[in-house]
Amino acid sequence: MAKITELPLNEDGIATVLGVLKQQFGDRFQTGQSIREQHGHTTTWLTNQSPDGVVFARSKDEVTAIVNICATHKVPVIPYGTGTSLEGHVNAPAGGISVDVSQMNQILEVFSDDLSCIVQPGVTREQLNTYLRDQGLFFPIDPGANASLGGMTATNASGTNAVRYGTMKDNVLAVEAVMANGETIRTAQRAKKSSAGYDLTRLMVGSEGTLGLITQITLRLQGIPEAISSARCTFPTVDAACQTVMQVIQYGIPVARIELLDAVQVKACNAYSKMDMPEEPLLLLEFHGSDASVLEQAEMFGAIAEEHGGAGYTSTTSTEERNKLWQARHDAYWATLQLRPGAVGISTDVCVPISRLADCVSAAQAKLKDEGFISPIVGHVGDGNFHCLLLIDDKNPDEMERAGQFVSWLNELAISMDGTCTGEHGIGQGKMPYLSKELGQATVDVMGAIKMALDPDGIMNPGKVVAV
Amino acid sequence: MAKITELPLNEDGIATVLGVLKQQFGDRFQTGQSIREQHGHTTTWLTNQSPDGVVFARSKDEVTAIVNICATHKVPVIPYGTGTSLEGHVNAPAGGISVDVSQMNQILEVFSDDLSCIVQPGVTREQLNTYLRDQGLFFPIDPGANASLGGMTATNASGTNAVRYGTMKDNVLAVEAVMANGETIRTAQRAKKSSAGYDLTRLMVGSEGTLGLITQITLRLQGIPEAISSARCTFPTVDAACQTVMQVIQYGIPVARIELLDAVQVKACNAYSKMDMPEEPLLLLEFHGSDASVLEQAEMFGAIAEEHGGAGYTSTTSTEERNKLWQARHDAYWATLQLRPGAVGISTDVCVPISRLADCVSAAQAKLKDEGFISPIVGHVGDGNFHCLLLIDDKNPDEMERAGQFVSWLNELAISMDGTCTGEHGIGQGKMPYLSKELGQATVDVMGAIKMALDPDGIMNPGKVVAV
Repeated sequence: MAKITELPLNEDGIATVLGVLKQQFGDRFQTGQSIREQHGHTTTWLTNQSPDGVVFARSKDEVTAIVNICATHKVPVIPYGTGTSLEGHVNAPAGGISVDVSQMNQILEVFSDDLSCIVQPGVTREQLNTYLRDQGLFFPIDPGANASLGGMTATNASGTNAVRYGTMKDNVLAVEAVMANGETIRTAQRAKKSSAGYDLTRLMVGSEGTLGLITQITLRLQGIPEAISSARCTFPTVDAACQTVMQVIQYGIPVARIELLDAVQVKACNAYSKMDMPEEPLLLLEFHGSDASVLEQAEMFGAIAEEHGGAGYTSTTSTEERNKLWQARHDAYWATLQLRPGAVGISTDVCVPISRLADCVSAAQAKLKDEGFISPIVGHVGDGNFHCLLLIDDKNPDEMERAGQFVSWLNELAISMDGTCTGEHGIGQGKMPYLSKELGQATVDVMGAIKMALDPDGIMNPGKVVAV
Repeated sequence: MAKITELPLNEDGIATVLGVLKQQFGDRFQTGQSIREQHGHTTTWLTNQSPDGVVFARSKDEVTAIVNICATHKVPVIPYGTGTSLEGHVNAPAGGISVDVSQMNQILEVFSDDLSCIVQPGVTREQLNTYLRDQGLFFPIDPGANASLGGMTATNASGTNAVRYGTMKDNVLAVEAVMANGETIRTAQRAKKSSAGYDLTRLMVGSEGTLGLITQITLRLQGIPEAISSARCTFPTVDAACQTVMQVIQYGIPVARIELLDAVQVKACNAYSKMDMPEEPLLLLEFHGSDASVLEQAEMFGAIAEEHGGAGYTSTTSTEERNKLWQARHDAYWATLQLRPGAVGISTDVCVPISRLADCVSAAQAKLKDEGFISPIVGHVGDGNFHCLLLIDDKNPDEMERAGQFVSWLNELAISMDGTCTGEHGIGQGKMPYLSKELGQATVDVMGAIKMALDPDGIMNPGKVVAV
């Protein structure tokens, strides 16, 4: 298992900053143990490393003030949205101040004619979509959790809709961010495309708070499709399901979602969501378009699925049935945890070229079985991305060790297939050991040089992404 | 008119490098005046600033050797593809060595199952598409010129198909590049998405040779659509045409191309391409999809166009007619030059949010008329991007001065509309004065810090994008 970095503490600096922030922010600055632990919380196996204090910021000016105070005393600044990240992004290995942006939750402007909007980082994706619904618009990125858009931007989240609508990188037009020197940058105007200088938008998206603290995000929106239909189909093996997916992508069928659940996952979902799907590998799909187009897509999918032994193919345009199906998919994480009460879930996140997907999923499934792990597989397979969720007793060192070995093995397998150790969760603390294996040391050194140039004192979310 | 930077020459370093390269590359290193001038050539109004020598590289190892020699002696390195850039990208304001990659023109591998390929930077887009045709695949980015894919990557090119398929940023999966320190980086694996560290792929795309020299590019490909139809429709005013475009985009009709030609441009195209289109504002369209889908798109477009006074709407699935129409569009630049033989063309490149497109185009058209310029307007209007091509007598200082004032005025108008001074041509030398106006000095300073960190001696294409 990857070791979490332990970094030296700047105890004098931290003590000073605690005093200044208390004075400036009053009750909006908290140092109680439970709130600190909650802000170092990660939804996975990594050890909690709590910050020294939590400040609830309400504006860009307040964020600037916090960064300036911390910069003066060389104290870490760690942004916090909803705490749903999975690789220790909000941990504080060198202590410091967690900047909770949940009160920066204003939808500042919606440009319905331009299909774009500007939000503060604490706005959650469900909040935004509820707000947009009456205008016939939606924001397509759906990582499952009701994450904050600031966090989704910082980690380059994606999820079920990415096969059609892309990742955060494709849907963030610009960010405003406070940098380590206290300066505010705005990375782009609101035009749909630009070749004006280095692409700082995409540099900030996925930088995990290590280069600056995001204070506004300009997002691309989509019109709610005229028609939406969902479908499900059962397959004899995960290999057959993956072969189907590969062909769907190659044929250019513009599926909006195409999700794989292996038999273990289907079983867990049935139990948790009180459903009765056949407990075999399953593809869940969603089609967006005109009435004619969703029908055509569903038919094309059906024909391909049949060639690969797909069975029980049903599609529906009923909103109720669709919601039930996708709610079950969204609850897969919680359903899985019920398979072994008390266990922690360790999620892998590899992503491979689609031609290698069947090989990679099949190998992972065989290895999980050999090792005797309880671990469903679920994935955004249209992108070649899937997750094994290993259920592990974190009090059992041997089991933890073996889980770590599995994660390493799978990451390296994906890398050997020209894939990545992280399709959407980010590097955080947990994936740092794999970054140079994936991209080579020279590439990681370039990332380190950028980090050093923009944050020479290393105060922005230290101990994540790149060690400098 | 923007001043071109004059940079100090490192004469001793250059003399040494000329000797070493001659020895190492023999006939593949050229210092004759005409070849040097050709490599400082720009297709627009900027003064030619020739490099001191041109080396024709054949491999990544040769590029590395050239960069190392130049780095040792602090001599500029300027990458050269086909020389079709428009903002002085290949000029050599501090002298130095032009690295011509036209002999690095191998298509290294096509992964048809994954819809991706790896090419060397000297491969041109037409070469790639000819190669791919038999496999039912194509690369969608089409800037008009038969540019090299290295140059298109370096400038973040886009063009007519971007409204559906995005820009180079959306279609480059990874690059290999030789950096100023001689190290080779590979920015990503070949998986469709990744959250592994900072997005160096998008940092290199659009960096215009100022951060490193691109030696390989991994591209996303598309399946050739089952059906393609093209269409044209005439409008009473550019405003009516732009209103139509705005509605098409808002309705989410997935047009593959939607191009505006104003009446002056149509007239020029008629004369050059021997066509007889009505000499009024024109939209040219292309629809990609299934047979049913292209029909549906064409019908939806027709209904919207009619509401805005569109006339003479015709669509066709004939390949011959389509090719004739799009060849005329591609030849628009050459057609325009015929309107005033001997004049140079100065192309603007603003891009605004689609809701401001009609205002911006109409204002530009009115101003051109007031000022008495001969300048057609043509644009990738689905993205809010359009070009005025001013025909100017570059021997007439007053006319040059007034043209410069128009360019400034239009750039600032677009910026005031939350748009950009460059939708697709890049900053180069010509747009440097507008970068801080568009993004603010703090943002440009971040770009400068990245440039300094990765190229501390400033040898990579100096005098472009950011001055440090």
